[in-house]
Amino acid sequence: MAGKIYVVGLGPGSEMEMTCEAQEALRRAEVIVGYHTYLRLIPGYLKGKEVFGSGMRQEIVRCRRALELAASGRTVAVVSSGDPGVYGMAGLVLELIAQQGPEVEVEVVAGVPALSFCAARLGAPLMHDFAVISLSDLLTPWELILRRIEAAAAADFVIVIYNPRSSKRQRHLLEAREQILRHRSPQTPVGLVRAAGRPAEEVSICTLEGLEPEQVDMQTTLIVGNSQTFVWKGRMITPRGYRLPS
Amino acid sequence: MAGKIYVVGLGPGSEMEMTCEAQEALRRAEVIVGYHTYLRLIPGYLKGKEVFGSGMRQEIVRCRRALELAASGRTVAVVSSGDPGVYGMAGLVLELIAQQGPEVEVEVVAGVPALSFCAARLGAPLMHDFAVISLSDLLTPWELILRRIEAAAAADFVIVIYNPRSSKRQRHLLEAREQILRHRSPQTPVGLVRAAGRPAEEVSICTLEGLEPEQVDMQTTLIVGNSQTFVWKGRMITPRGYRLPS
Repeated sequence: MAGKIYVVGLGPGSEMEMTCEAQEALRRAEVIVGYHTYLRLIPGYLKGKEVFGSGMRQEIVRCRRALELAASGRTVAVVSSGDPGVYGMAGLVLELIAQQGPEVEVEVVAGVPALSFCAARLGAPLMHDFAVISLSDLLTPWELILRRIEAAAAADFVIVIYNPRSSKRQRHLLEAREQILRHRSPQTPVGLVRAAGRPAEEVSICTLEGLEPEQVDMQTTLIVGNSQTFVWKGRMITPRGYRLPS
Repeated sequence: MAGKIYVVGLGPGSEMEMTCEAQEALRRAEVIVGYHTYLRLIPGYLKGKEVFGSGMRQEIVRCRRALELAASGRTVAVVSSGDPGVYGMAGLVLELIAQQGPEVEVEVVAGVPALSFCAARLGAPLMHDFAVISLSDLLTPWELILRRIEAAAAADFVIVIYNPRSSKRQRHLLEAREQILRHRSPQTPVGLVRAAGRPAEEVSICTLEGLEPEQVDMQTTLIVGNSQTFVWKGRMITPRGYRLPS
């Protein structure tokens, strides 16, 4: 009898930010599979379970292991930080099943994505149409990423940037900033949230022209305001468009 | 002494999909403020509390009431379905405070947004860069919305469409579809999730050319695939770009 895979979103990290549905899926699982760093966020759920952890860029290894376990009848939870449906593990699990065909049931349990959590910390920057773009060119040509940045900037989307920088990619954020500056004021607010929801969390707001790549690492999410976004007492606010009676 | 406002995301609706943080904020609140329909989702949290409910398009009335209550020292929860930070109540609360200036603490408690929840129901459509666009032109000129649709389509974003239709707006979805079809194959998968997470939930997948406005109402969220998105056994999958060993 084939088993089941839950692909579970942990949200930013603490148990308080998980949904009850996600907690329930972790309790039901016999085996928990995930990136080491994320498994460390949920020690209480690992007790008495089989655990398969692996390192960065081992996503395919982890997913294959989950598939084998589920195909042999086990109930498996594959964990992902944030929401597994936003650049997360949900796609890889389904892609591998589509390719290899084991009869395995899959349920994606959504979590609070980084874009939501970071927006909450910054104020209310996502009150209007927004684009979500990853600057990682490991799996996507840089030209396509830059074209999307340009399109989003030109059409006045708020822009959420995932994976803004790594040690190998120093120039990307600068190029993205240049592209956005062609269409948006240098004074446009940019919110930065680092290590969201974790003890080392840092939240700051700068301007587009003042944005320095040194402020940013792989754990940072950026939100670039649209032409209407303003900052008020440390909060970044994109107006929804209501006419407010004064 | 000034009070506090929690702007709380309920997620799609059931308690199981709320975060513990959101539940805790509702427990701490002395007064709960919200749209009638959302208050009905959380009867257990209303017991023994003061409740201020109002109807559709009464957002400003609700927010002002919350501000008055908090300014007089009460702890207030303003509830929003999904994530209050995505087209939700977080912005209006902060905009009103910025305009009127009462000394009130505000904490936004993120919830699982409709985009995440609907993506989970459909499979894994948001594995690559995406744009989120509301078709409601109550507060935004239709020309700007259409320009964003066009930009997102041309740059091959997955497109999440909120508020696709109301009784007064029959043509908008057709115009948006026309615009997307100029850049994307008629066979592009489109996922539709109606009344996500509620008893009347309906999930379906069609093609861009087969999309009929009659399938869609104000409670529906649409996800239009990018050029790589495919459907496999009723799941909508946008590849992340991994080269999968076969």
